[in-house]
Amino acid sequence: MEREFHRWLKERARIENLVDPRNTNRQSNGNVSNGDDAAVFDFFGKPLVIATDTIAEGTHFVIPRVGDVFQTLKQIGHKALAVSLSDIAAMGATPVAATLNFQCPKRMSLNEVTAIYEGAEALSKRFGFQIVGGDTNSWTGELVVSSTVFGTRPAHLAGWSLSDAKVGESIFVSGELGGSIHGRHLTFEPRLELADFLQEKYSVGAATDATDSLTVDLMAIATGSQVRMQIDLSAIPISPDVQPDDRTPLDHALSDGEDFELIFTLSAEEAERLLADSETPTPVTQIGTVIEGDEDEPNIVSRYGDKIAVKGYDH
Amino acid sequence: MEREFHRWLKERARIENLVDPRNTNRQSNGNVSNGDDAAVFDFFGKPLVIATDTIAEGTHFVIPRVGDVFQTLKQIGHKALAVSLSDIAAMGATPVAATLNFQCPKRMSLNEVTAIYEGAEALSKRFGFQIVGGDTNSWTGELVVSSTVFGTRPAHLAGWSLSDAKVGESIFVSGELGGSIHGRHLTFEPRLELADFLQEKYSVGAATDATDSLTVDLMAIATGSQVRMQIDLSAIPISPDVQPDDRTPLDHALSDGEDFELIFTLSAEEAERLLADSETPTPVTQIGTVIEGDEDEPNIVSRYGDKIAVKGYDH
Repeated sequence: MEREFHRWLKERARIENLVDPRNTNRQSNGNVSNGDDAAVFDFFGKPLVIATDTIAEGTHFVIPRVGDVFQTLKQIGHKALAVSLSDIAAMGATPVAATLNFQCPKRMSLNEVTAIYEGAEALSKRFGFQIVGGDTNSWTGELVVSSTVFGTRPAHLAGWSLSDAKVGESIFVSGELGGSIHGRHLTFEPRLELADFLQEKYSVGAATDATDSLTVDLMAIATGSQVRMQIDLSAIPISPDVQPDDRTPLDHALSDGEDFELIFTLSAEEAERLLADSETPTPVTQIGTVIEGDEDEPNIVSRYGDKIAVKGYDH
Repeated sequence: MEREFHRWLKERARIENLVDPRNTNRQSNGNVSNGDDAAVFDFFGKPLVIATDTIAEGTHFVIPRVGDVFQTLKQIGHKALAVSLSDIAAMGATPVAATLNFQCPKRMSLNEVTAIYEGAEALSKRFGFQIVGGDTNSWTGELVVSSTVFGTRPAHLAGWSLSDAKVGESIFVSGELGGSIHGRHLTFEPRLELADFLQEKYSVGAATDATDSLTVDLMAIATGSQVRMQIDLSAIPISPDVQPDDRTPLDHALSDGEDFELIFTLSAEEAERLLADSETPTPVTQIGTVIEGDEDEPNIVSRYGDKIAVKGYDH
């Protein structure tokens, strides 16, 4: 099957070799920042931002045995690439290329594998970059898809990190939170457009994407920046995807995983400007304020000072 | 376990953020060549060579349940990175950074995962580059390790490909072939030093690495370059790892997989110079000559014109 798949890929790929090797040096200086959503590597003076993620059957998705299997497989391809793109967005970067690796169950047909690829390819086309390579193997195990995305940052702009939240800044989140397990975790949009927009018009402090849960990822900023996050619980945008059960909708919004929304901070002045900005490509909500932290215990509190439990989805 | 592992990684990593974002542009021109051992991406005028590979339990390695499990896990880490480095070498490139993704069986302990990482890290240190990121998940399946390596090429030198073999050139292979399944497939050296040496002193025509088998990978050059490969069977360097069975040692050398030796072509004049060169860092053997091909049927023949069967190891 792999050979058929490679042939299929090759037919679609624009195979060019227009590289000018005269422009390289033998050495790159090798500075790396890797405590964040993605690594930043200095590639001959240009920031090469590298994000990589693996999704696996049973953990991050289920393949139905009946119904529109191909539709689900496309969504799996979409998700495999989107998870890394979400990290690229959280770094304030723009994707330029990606690779995609598959471990496919032996039962999978060529059409099933290409469906996965097509899901990823549609996303890469939409954002104007190419999937430049990969590795595909059949095996006795379940489906595993890894993506690695290479991005860069605009010439005149700084990158974002978990460690740049400053006291007094406003905390924002994009979109709506909770209940992604009912389907949105497979179809979500990486917030590249919003990241681009913010890079162009605003000075973001800290940023990350809500992967494990809003509280877990807010806590990552609190820890990275040695601050506390004061959250207005009544402001949390709860997704209509949240379904009634023994937990409150707010609890879902705070602790469900795989929302992949952008969490970021802005100065109070810029926050006001953003709230009045009619061009924002994705809805954003101001959910709180960065307050002074006790160095030993960065945490998340409500407007009334109560500690908010930090909980996430455990796959 | 993942969090412990991430913490462990973080402690070891040099976390720096010395990137100067002023040097980038918004656009990369996006030329890509991806029909080869690795993709070549033009990153702001510098060739970014990207190789990626996945190895999986049961397919590419077995984890023993008794004996020195940690030694094997280190070798698995070594192999996971070495397979991508072998592709980087086959492109005439030099590694500058890598990412490593793990899908770990739930039974695995932190120490076991770090042993894998250490095996990869030792190799990266030896070749002077960093593992800049990755993704680690536990799951109910078996161990899967993906590596992606980013390389570049010297300023003044061209890259190598499968499609540049010219009639009259001599065909070389590094090291010795066959029997890697008895252990060498876990411990092999990616031929980066040899690739570097050849880049500096010689003009390589076509190149690849022997992954599937000598004959399969020679055939890839024959097909890519529309030529025939005339092989002197008596010259094939047979590894002492080949063990007696119902196949001849030569058959093992021609069709066993995972040798990861460099296969390359040189002009007759350069071939003579290489054979007399006392500084070659890895033994190389001249095994044949590129001859004119029938366009419809590139193939491999012996010195007497007999077709040589193209066979490889099927995982």
